[in-house]
Amino acid sequence: VSSSPPMNTLEAIHARRAIKHYDPTHRLSEDEVKILLTAAMQAPTAFNIQHWRFVLVTDPELRREIRANAWDQAQVTDASLLIIMTADRDAWKKDPARYWVNAPQPVQDFLVPAIGGYYEGREQVQRDECMRSCGLAGMALMLAAKEMGYDSCPMDGFDFDAVAKIIQLPEDHVISFMIAVGKGTQPAWPKPGQLPYDKVVIENRFA
Amino acid sequence: VSSSPPMNTLEAIHARRAIKHYDPTHRLSEDEVKILLTAAMQAPTAFNIQHWRFVLVTDPELRREIRANAWDQAQVTDASLLIIMTADRDAWKKDPARYWVNAPQPVQDFLVPAIGGYYEGREQVQRDECMRSCGLAGMALMLAAKEMGYDSCPMDGFDFDAVAKIIQLPEDHVISFMIAVGKGTQPAWPKPGQLPYDKVVIENRFA
Repeated sequence: VSSSPPMNTLEAIHARRAIKHYDPTHRLSEDEVKILLTAAMQAPTAFNIQHWRFVLVTDPELRREIRANAWDQAQVTDASLLIIMTADRDAWKKDPARYWVNAPQPVQDFLVPAIGGYYEGREQVQRDECMRSCGLAGMALMLAAKEMGYDSCPMDGFDFDAVAKIIQLPEDHVISFMIAVGKGTQPAWPKPGQLPYDKVVIENRFA
Repeated sequence: VSSSPPMNTLEAIHARRAIKHYDPTHRLSEDEVKILLTAAMQAPTAFNIQHWRFVLVTDPELRREIRANAWDQAQVTDASLLIIMTADRDAWKKDPARYWVNAPQPVQDFLVPAIGGYYEGREQVQRDECMRSCGLAGMALMLAAKEMGYDSCPMDGFDFDAVAKIIQLPEDHVISFMIAVGKGTQPAWPKPGQLPYDKVVIENRFA
């Protein structure tokens, strides 16, 4: 895939940083793009609803429009890839049998109706699921990129409504964030202020 | 860390599955727990607010109470670890200077006030951020576990309000999901119904 050696998972997790400056002439091969997005598709979703919809923005004009709605951040146009992490909030009710079609019949009979039971009428739960699933998938994608010798930048500093319009996002979909991927040209700044472990990890219950 | 060979990132991404059955006698070492949670802490957060709060439930009685509020799923008590992925919705306004304390002064002067500007009065955005950040961190944690020879199970099939009470979740925090980690005893069932790549990956804009 790339000239980098395979990177073990913990190395990739520690090496990944948000990179803002990219080589604008670099392109990923079609195979590399497919490896990355297929990695994202391995992320878990509740009830296997796979509701993420990854919008790969390849049109330079669209990239410019998005950049104009993203505080003019250079990575939006300069990175090799720009992927908008969106999800279909209503995927749970769109032919849910397809998410379990290869499972044994009793599993299908139990799980498929349970999907509707879980989401029906719970709009905040539906939206939370979109945000969470895109987070899970986005991390897989960024770590896969790191191993393949690429950098990435997760972004939510943009006008979500304007970008939704640009990509013709359906009414029942939501944007979670976007990810730029490419050949970084400048290292990240040193970590700017890590919270201590004991502040972030709580044992059993909050005090 | 474990007897497993290091696993490269793409391997870990493809090998990770949600595992429901665990060896209840297995325990992780303190070092292993720290490696896992430190991996989660490498995940990105917007403005570096690091608002996740990982609740490691070690008390068997609490585990039983949580299981009783989680459709009696065995992994809640049987897995070596149970981690409740929560986030502080108000972290953005709690001494935000600490998130950038080691950055150059001009960066601090620009970014720290921008945090309040982004979140102030935007409750849905604050909540979305919690869900997304926990997703990103949770994926790092599950992939680290996989490399270390462990299995995991992300879960949102539980009574969020009841679990919030059990762990004394502060009013301004939210639960995103929970993750069981341990030595799996049964393989996952085959993938039950993968959506095709072209259904999930959209180029440029929705039709």
